[in-house]
Amino acid sequence: MEKTRLGPEPIIVPMPALIVGANVNEKPNFMVASWCGIAGFKPPAITVAMNKARHTLKGIKENGTFSVNVPSCGMIKKADYCGIYSGKKRDKSQVFKTFYGELKTAPLVEECPINLECKVLHSLDMKTHMLIIGEIVETYVSKDCLTDGKIDTKKVDPPVYIRSTLKYHRLGEVFSSAFGVGRADGDTRDPATILSSNMSGISI
Amino acid sequence: MEKTRLGPEPIIVPMPALIVGANVNEKPNFMVASWCGIAGFKPPAITVAMNKARHTLKGIKENGTFSVNVPSCGMIKKADYCGIYSGKKRDKSQVFKTFYGELKTAPLVEECPINLECKVLHSLDMKTHMLIIGEIVETYVSKDCLTDGKIDTKKVDPPVYIRSTLKYHRLGEVFSSAFGVGRADGDTRDPATILSSNMSGISI
Repeated sequence: MEKTRLGPEPIIVPMPALIVGANVNEKPNFMVASWCGIAGFKPPAITVAMNKARHTLKGIKENGTFSVNVPSCGMIKKADYCGIYSGKKRDKSQVFKTFYGELKTAPLVEECPINLECKVLHSLDMKTHMLIIGEIVETYVSKDCLTDGKIDTKKVDPPVYIRSTLKYHRLGEVFSSAFGVGRADGDTRDPATILSSNMSGISI
Repeated sequence: MEKTRLGPEPIIVPMPALIVGANVNEKPNFMVASWCGIAGFKPPAITVAMNKARHTLKGIKENGTFSVNVPSCGMIKKADYCGIYSGKKRDKSQVFKTFYGELKTAPLVEECPINLECKVLHSLDMKTHMLIIGEIVETYVSKDCLTDGKIDTKKVDPPVYIRSTLKYHRLGEVFSSAFGVGRADGDTRDPATILSSNMSGISI
C-alpha cells in the first residue's frame, strides 16, 4: 500500500468534542477540547492539551481544578461558541447552567450528559501547549441518559469530531463488539492464519 | 437535570480504537489503545496510557520509539485480536505487514490508513498505568485514503469505540461544521441570549 508523508501532524481519528470548564477570577469559563485522553485507571485520570494562551488554563492554574464535560449533539451551537470566543473578550459564565461538586471550584455543566470533576496532578510544558493531567475525583451522569442504571449511548448522543475536515459527526451504527470478534481461544494456529479467515465471526 | 454519581470513572465519549506498535526483542508487537490523546501542536505529540504489564510497553522502554496507527473498520478482527492476546503468549509480529520510517525501530502498520511514528518525550508513572508522551516525528497516510490530496474520512472508515458498552461503532453522518455554527461575530448581546435562539444556523 503506497503511503504519503504529511510531515508530523497530530492526527487521531476520531476525536471527542468535550467542554472543559474552570473558574477564572471566580467565574466559570468554558472551552471546547478534543485533545484529551484517558491517562490512568486507578486513580482514574485524564489529559487535556491546551494552548498556553487559553483563558481556561488561567483558571486551572488558579484553582488546580477543572471539569471535562461530554455534550450531546443538540448542544453543538453552545459548544462551538465556547470554542470560537475567548473568555478574555466574552463572558461565557452564563452559557451553561453549572453546578459544583466536592472540589467546590470546578464548574460542571448541568446539561451535559456526562461530567468529570478533576484536580490537577501534573502539568507538562509541551512548548506551544500545556499538557494538564488531572485526577478524576467524581463522575456524574444525567439520570435521563441512563437505561437500567447504565449509560445509554443513544441518549447521550455525543458529537464525534474529525479534525481534518472540521466536521462534527453523529455516532453511527454498532458493527462489532470489542474484546469479542478477535477471540480465538484454543486456536493454536499462527495469528496470520487465524486472522486471514473471513469476518463471519463478527458478533454484535 | 438530575445527576447520578458513578464514583470516579475514566469516561470519554467517544474514543478512538488505535493500534499501538513497538518492537519487543526486535520483533513487532501490537496492542489496541483507546486511551490516547493529542498532547501538543508544535512539536506534535501524543499520549498513550498503558497498563504496566503490557508487553508493548516493554518495547517502548527498550527503543524509546513506538507507532500509533488508525485502523479501518474492516480491520477490526485483527485489531481486536491484538487487544485480547498478549505478546507474551502469542507472537503478533505477523498479524500486520509492517514498515519502518526514520526512527528505524517503530513498526508502522501498512494496512492502517494513518500512521504516526513517535519517539518518547516523557513517561509518567500513573500507578496502575504508565502515561507515555511521544513526539510525532512523521505522519503517513495511505494514498488510497486521500481525495484531492486530503484525508478522506469515508475512505479511512475508522472505528469509534464506546467503552461503557464495549462496542465499536461506525462514524455517522456529518451534522455540523466546527468553528462555524457557534459564530456570532458582531452580535453584542449576551451569550445566553445569542445561544437561546434556535439551531437554524447550523451549516454543514
